[in-house]
Amino acid sequence: MKHYDAQAIEQLERRFRANLINSSSGFKSANLIGTKSKDGQENVAIFSSVVHLGSDPALIGYIQRPLGDHSHTYRNIMETGVYTINHVPAKLVEQAHYTSARLARDASEFEACRLSPYYLEGFEAPFVAESPVLLGMRFVQEIPIELNGTRLIIGKIEHLLFHAALVGADGNLALDQAQSAVVAGLDSYYGPSFLVKLPYAKASELPIF
Amino acid sequence: MKHYDAQAIEQLERRFRANLINSSSGFKSANLIGTKSKDGQENVAIFSSVVHLGSDPALIGYIQRPLGDHSHTYRNIMETGVYTINHVPAKLVEQAHYTSARLARDASEFEACRLSPYYLEGFEAPFVAESPVLLGMRFVQEIPIELNGTRLIIGKIEHLLFHAALVGADGNLALDQAQSAVVAGLDSYYGPSFLVKLPYAKASELPIF
Repeated sequence: MKHYDAQAIEQLERRFRANLINSSSGFKSANLIGTKSKDGQENVAIFSSVVHLGSDPALIGYIQRPLGDHSHTYRNIMETGVYTINHVPAKLVEQAHYTSARLARDASEFEACRLSPYYLEGFEAPFVAESPVLLGMRFVQEIPIELNGTRLIIGKIEHLLFHAALVGADGNLALDQAQSAVVAGLDSYYGPSFLVKLPYAKASELPIF
Repeated sequence: MKHYDAQAIEQLERRFRANLINSSSGFKSANLIGTKSKDGQENVAIFSSVVHLGSDPALIGYIQRPLGDHSHTYRNIMETGVYTINHVPAKLVEQAHYTSARLARDASEFEACRLSPYYLEGFEAPFVAESPVLLGMRFVQEIPIELNGTRLIIGKIEHLLFHAALVGADGNLALDQAQSAVVAGLDSYYGPSFLVKLPYAKASELPIF
């Protein structure tokens, strides 16, 4: 086993450390967040920090990095109060990845990366038409994480769209059929295949391992 | 496309909604969190809400559900200030899943689920010996999420252990070789296979899609 302690981690070369630490917490969901500025400029960007917070109410969070000149997603959410979260299917990982390029604010990643904006009547933020699972989010709260200048952005699901064939009788979405991709670290994409579905774990019915 | 709005989501049957919303944010990492009470009782439990917060300092968060009688992981972290995060490899998903059964506090999921505690000298929390990637965490901060009674638990990586063959020259861990599993919803496990590794996205070098 290779072993780094806190001091060894701090002394790693910056880029090596970023890759190592980013991949050390395991696979992450690959999602595109779609927004529109109050002037009507569309934006879409890939995020790997989306996290489930609760199902009743239906709340989802994501980690917003420290703000810079190019934090269009965050600024648009603050302007309009809405955004979309869209799964990245395996066939779109390359287009989705390049949404992280720092385009000018008046350029649309939808256009540059050949993704199609899709709108629901009465909901201002653009969905990604090519995605198999699409969420329309209403911004609820931001919680600053002062330790490193990031923030947890919390939204409530106002719209949930998916291909009807994906949902099982118990409500689970078949994310392998959706071909939803995952990402390791900053740049490596993977497509998951099904292993097993397990019953609710009851202490009284524990298997003997 | 199937479409649920906020009202339709609220009216779904409770269990169906939990499965649907839990799987709607995409795949999640499967991690075992290992702790020990100040009385020496070991505990290990599966979590799917681990989220990368930053690599310098190396910070990782997870979402703690509202506390109940069985929140041993949280209570142990508050008592000792340390915990471990351990990837669940594909071959262990069943054992890892059953750590969510509500055992009595004086029972160890390590024993019930046949997982092996592993200790580093001077670090009080048990690692999972069978895991391919193991993190020793020092609790730093908890941030309450008052919207639903959950909380973001933030820790700093004090120890990072992994099979030496997993790390690439650029610092990335090959999580497919680690066979790190992912989970969809509450109970469906998947093993990811490699798709593609992409370069840093520069606006000036955008491919033509």
